[in-house]
Amino acid sequence: MEGQTRSDGVVRVPADARERFYDSRGYGRPAGDALDLAPVEAAHLLYRGDLDSVDGRGFREYLSAGDGLAVRFLVYKDLRDRGFYCSPTREGWSDAVEAGEAADFLVYPRGKGPWDGVVEHRVHVVGERTTVPADGLEGGVLAVVDEESEITYLDTSRAPVEGSTEHAPPTGVEATLLGDRVVAWDPPAALYEQGFYGQPLDRDDDAVQLSLVEAAYLAGDGVLDIEAGDEPDGRAAVVARGREAEGDRFDRRLAVYSTLRNRGVVPKTGFKFGADFRTYAAVESVEELGHSELLVRVLPAGHAFAPRDLALDVRLAHGVRKEMVFALVDGAGAEDGADDGDDSRIEWLRVQRLTP
Amino acid sequence: MEGQTRSDGVVRVPADARERFYDSRGYGRPAGDALDLAPVEAAHLLYRGDLDSVDGRGFREYLSAGDGLAVRFLVYKDLRDRGFYCSPTREGWSDAVEAGEAADFLVYPRGKGPWDGVVEHRVHVVGERTTVPADGLEGGVLAVVDEESEITYLDTSRAPVEGSTEHAPPTGVEATLLGDRVVAWDPPAALYEQGFYGQPLDRDDDAVQLSLVEAAYLAGDGVLDIEAGDEPDGRAAVVARGREAEGDRFDRRLAVYSTLRNRGVVPKTGFKFGADFRTYAAVESVEELGHSELLVRVLPAGHAFAPRDLALDVRLAHGVRKEMVFALVDGAGAEDGADDGDDSRIEWLRVQRLTP
Repeated sequence: MEGQTRSDGVVRVPADARERFYDSRGYGRPAGDALDLAPVEAAHLLYRGDLDSVDGRGFREYLSAGDGLAVRFLVYKDLRDRGFYCSPTREGWSDAVEAGEAADFLVYPRGKGPWDGVVEHRVHVVGERTTVPADGLEGGVLAVVDEESEITYLDTSRAPVEGSTEHAPPTGVEATLLGDRVVAWDPPAALYEQGFYGQPLDRDDDAVQLSLVEAAYLAGDGVLDIEAGDEPDGRAAVVARGREAEGDRFDRRLAVYSTLRNRGVVPKTGFKFGADFRTYAAVESVEELGHSELLVRVLPAGHAFAPRDLALDVRLAHGVRKEMVFALVDGAGAEDGADDGDDSRIEWLRVQRLTP
Repeated sequence: MEGQTRSDGVVRVPADARERFYDSRGYGRPAGDALDLAPVEAAHLLYRGDLDSVDGRGFREYLSAGDGLAVRFLVYKDLRDRGFYCSPTREGWSDAVEAGEAADFLVYPRGKGPWDGVVEHRVHVVGERTTVPADGLEGGVLAVVDEESEITYLDTSRAPVEGSTEHAPPTGVEATLLGDRVVAWDPPAALYEQGFYGQPLDRDDDAVQLSLVEAAYLAGDGVLDIEAGDEPDGRAAVVARGREAEGDRFDRRLAVYSTLRNRGVVPKTGFKFGADFRTYAAVESVEELGHSELLVRVLPAGHAFAPRDLALDVRLAHGVRKEMVFALVDGAGAEDGADDGDDSRIEWLRVQRLTP
């Protein structure tokens, strides 16, 4: 059986093709008794020997001719090998194809096909060298084909981070800005023990060291009264120190820290995991602390991911049984670093490995 | 007991201090019966209450005054708390201090001190926001103090990567450049099964997909004969495609790939671990393959690490029981991407977590 490419890039296969390839195996879109195929479907049928040629070309030639076709073919084949029927997202081929669809394939639940009207995954295919804008990741599956043609599936979702920690620390705690950290020399024990703010300098010592984001947040709430040399405004000095070290990134991190705290989630440094924060959704006391649940990386809203960096973060999080969350912060924030509790400028992007 | 800072920044503590602090606990350098202390030692003795003041200042004031002193103090204290004696690396204080010493502290083996002449670790202290040039990491321990004042110790060493894989693939294997990968349609089975080159397109298929670095390496050795459309030189077309996608990074990766293969080490993609390669030191056949031992990240020789990125890589490698190795490639390489087997321009930097 042979196919012909038409002017719109669709491959038309003549009569009987519908019965053989669509009705029983979910390829293409029926055109009477004939069948229209997307190039990746034609390539797969050529590969299997079900089609003899397209425009007179066999599998090898056909695959070489299409730009980017090889990568899409590898993912299509892998999904088919795993027992899924899937359809390329050609506009008008299915009601399930959305306007401006980012996905390359609609994948149906096992045992179902294009005629059932149920979509299990929307899969967007990229090579490992293609950067992926964070904007484009909002609920689909990213299939990354690495240089050795192995495929990693990453499931993305947008879901807020919520917690149930309730602790209102007392106000007026004295502290000192010391290099790029802050020390509260004699705070109420609850600041650390219930609030999980900072870290004791020593087991036998009352002094608690705080990070710049912790200190800026607490000072904004009136909890800390920070002495910073000759600077009259201790909080402003802390924010200035943070910006000196990290630039805009400090403001983004402070916005994320503040939002998490305001939502009852306790963020602590994620340094050992290479992240900005690890988080605890429900802290009653440090003594009864469980494992942290999330790793959070803070990024500007316009960030584009290198798939390899994404793979690194997601793999690490998986290995330590945490979920990887990216906090995408819209740049337009409070100028003075003041945290106004406006969290509408933060989007939460969760990414997990998926084995379809 | 009180100390006075002298013009060279050393804190002089009068008579009897030598006996109390040096002879039994390894602080400072004797000056007759008196004792000279580095600021971090003075801070620690102030913290412990062994010194009452330095220049009339107590611990808090003294610590606030010194630039960067807080971070060094935290590491010094941590090492002391772990039972180590350690000395600041002041020139002339010890024969063990080297010219141009990068380390901040010499740490002695447990139970030993500055009078024993044995050094266990040379520790270089940085805050998590300070970048660290790769050049400076050649055998010491990097102590990174994160924003919450937790300390991560990273042990660095320079040691070549060696393996014992022996497989000489046959020459004249035909292959096609296809997008950003290469397919050998009908290679000898040993190419994959013994040599572990590429990946079969399918279990039931003879075709093997190769990455661009694999293909460029094999073509350089005359193993592959690559067809690349109208391009007369298939290998040059592969290298050009690689550079198009990755720029100079492709040449660095090819140099590292080639060097590893020439040394009997098999590199495969490290994408799933966010690295350039994972490596196998001894491959006899793919069927009897063990776990890969190393994760390799390829970097230009002049690279400076953000400590957080370093922590991420090392943590991930540790979690999957592999060792993290950075291949630092000197830019001055073969212009045409030809691999001349000259591996003198690659330095291997191994980094591991250390619990002192």
